Amino acid sequence: MRAVDWIDGHIRFIDQTLLPHEERFVDTDDVRVVEDAIRSLAIRGAPAIGVAAAFGVVLAVKGKDSHGPVSIRQRVHEAVKSIGSTRPTAVNLFNALHRMNMIAERNPQASDDRLLQLLEAEAKAIQEEDIRACDRIGELGASLLGNGVSLLTHCNAGALATAGSGTALSVITTAARQGKVVRVFADETRPLLQGSRLTAWELQKAGIPVVLITDGTAASVLREGKVQAVIVGADRIAANGDAANKVGTYPLAVLANRHNVPFYVAAPTSTLDREASDGLAIPIEERTPGEVTHFAGVRVAPEGIGVYAPAFDVTPNELITAIVTEKEIFRQPYAAAIARTLELS
Amino acid sequence: MRAVDWIDGHIRFIDQTLLPHEERFVDTDDVRVVEDAIRSLAIRGAPAIGVAAAFGVVLAVKGKDSHGPVSIRQRVHEAVKSIGSTRPTAVNLFNALHRMNMIAERNPQASDDRLLQLLEAEAKAIQEEDIRACDRIGELGASLLGNGVSLLTHCNAGALATAGSGTALSVITTAARQGKVVRVFADETRPLLQGSRLTAWELQKAGIPVVLITDGTAASVLREGKVQAVIVGADRIAANGDAANKVGTYPLAVLANRHNVPFYVAAPTSTLDREASDGLAIPIEERTPGEVTHFAGVRVAPEGIGVYAPAFDVTPNELITAIVTEKEIFRQPYAAAIARTLELS
Repeated sequence: MRAVDWIDGHIRFIDQTLLPHEERFVDTDDVRVVEDAIRSLAIRGAPAIGVAAAFGVVLAVKGKDSHGPVSIRQRVHEAVKSIGSTRPTAVNLFNALHRMNMIAERNPQASDDRLLQLLEAEAKAIQEEDIRACDRIGELGASLLGNGVSLLTHCNAGALATAGSGTALSVITTAARQGKVVRVFADETRPLLQGSRLTAWELQKAGIPVVLITDGTAASVLREGKVQAVIVGADRIAANGDAANKVGTYPLAVLANRHNVPFYVAAPTSTLDREASDGLAIPIEERTPGEVTHFAGVRVAPEGIGVYAPAFDVTPNELITAIVTEKEIFRQPYAAAIARTLELS
Repeated sequence: MRAVDWIDGHIRFIDQTLLPHEERFVDTDDVRVVEDAIRSLAIRGAPAIGVAAAFGVVLAVKGKDSHGPVSIRQRVHEAVKSIGSTRPTAVNLFNALHRMNMIAERNPQASDDRLLQLLEAEAKAIQEEDIRACDRIGELGASLLGNGVSLLTHCNAGALATAGSGTALSVITTAARQGKVVRVFADETRPLLQGSRLTAWELQKAGIPVVLITDGTAASVLREGKVQAVIVGADRIAANGDAANKVGTYPLAVLANRHNVPFYVAAPTSTLDREASDGLAIPIEERTPGEVTHFAGVRVAPEGIGVYAPAFDVTPNELITAIVTEKEIFRQPYAAAIARTLELS
């Protein structure tokens, strides 16, 4: 199963808003469908958003009227701007769009057809890098885990969140194949229940025992010694190692620290943001009140009350035991390791 | 609005499972209806459960066949046992049942009619003590709060949870009447959403600005300095001050501590358990998996996955800034203050 893929010149994605009840794949050559899918979280997960955005640029310039009065380079710029406005926090989106933009910038002499080829090749490269990164993150992360461990994860950092096998869940499935994993506690992850709808579904398909808990139960699980590590993904990692991830991640890190349970972040280097010096520089998306006042389409709160619905929170680097990337496992001090990696890339 | 009341020889309660959509009051003289209501959380909140249990004993002995071959004392014992099996954690239930049982034990010579009178009087005393305790907790607790504060609460410790004006919410509404409160952040409180369904409803009715958040967002609210105190209720307080409350309370206390925000527990002395030396001795109820895998009849998780659903967690006393009771505000060391209070009672 690929959450986002490129097949014969169009994007195919699984509509994650329908899971776990229905596995519906959507085929589209319309960039606006892709943008709506990112906005509605039909396509979600920082690396998957990046890959979808890159192919979205290709769709935008490939459109029927792409050879009209608006130049192909102009269409690239417009697509980058439009797709970049869908969601603010996952930096993979902007890193992918930046790469697509640079293809147009660096090839001023290329013909329209040639530029389109180059753009498609770059998007495929982003996809293939993500697929390889997921596998490598799984191998490196699994090396951190002992035998007979139970794990805790939050939200969904699985195949559904990437073009490949996932980040945090790639670590878990790799370790499970090595016979190391007893069970995985999955936070349900309100408000959109990526844990119960997506992570539980992926782990169940992988044959890994999963125990679903409410987000407020994670502290009890940690305190009772039921898990030996916490592993989550990230939507943006600042230059000092502060990591933005789905809201509810930060308290997990605090509780893991209190109970001496290692707290790992698994993310490809495309999640690094060289321009954010620390977590305060990471923009945090706020979602609409309806996601909190309603549950599974049913209103659960009185009409007219206020809602505060940040989609992400930031875990300070001092609470992170290690950051698992496809290049290496970062340890404190993160700033040095991240700077070294960004220089090399 | 009274969550549980005694009117002309029967119990009237509001069915909390239907809130906030429908305000349906149920009148019953059948103790089994009361037991089912406690089990299903139609009646909930530790003090309210205690009051309902006391009147439930009266209903049990008042039944048509109460003067048959089974003695009235035997019926008291059976009712105490049956009502006591509904839910295990709230100690107010057992404290109230113990008081009812003692009425039967201490009046061996009383006629059936006289004993029934004494039982009804004791149940009314429990109710009236709770009403007065709520008001006094409100006054004492409000004295802890400065002007212009915003507050965070979890689950529902309001009028719906008691026979009177609530515990934590009595503090909040009293402070609000004093003009001290800017707004209240209410954790939605999964799985049964007492925060969005009940607390938001009560606060809105009281004209207090309320902001609903998912449980995982509370850490961000604390970190961002949006609240100056956390106030919650309790279902059982051990002799050393460890306090059991709705699951998700303990992580709030840890986060409040980290961000130097005072963490208050508001509860009547009927919540004290002299027999539990610390939190480990408090039995924690586990609820059925369906409360996590379903909402409003809609399945949100795949079939066949495991669930861990403790209804409560325990906050260790060292994370509690003060315990507000109707008698006094307890401070560290709690063991001494609690022992003194239990001796006096």
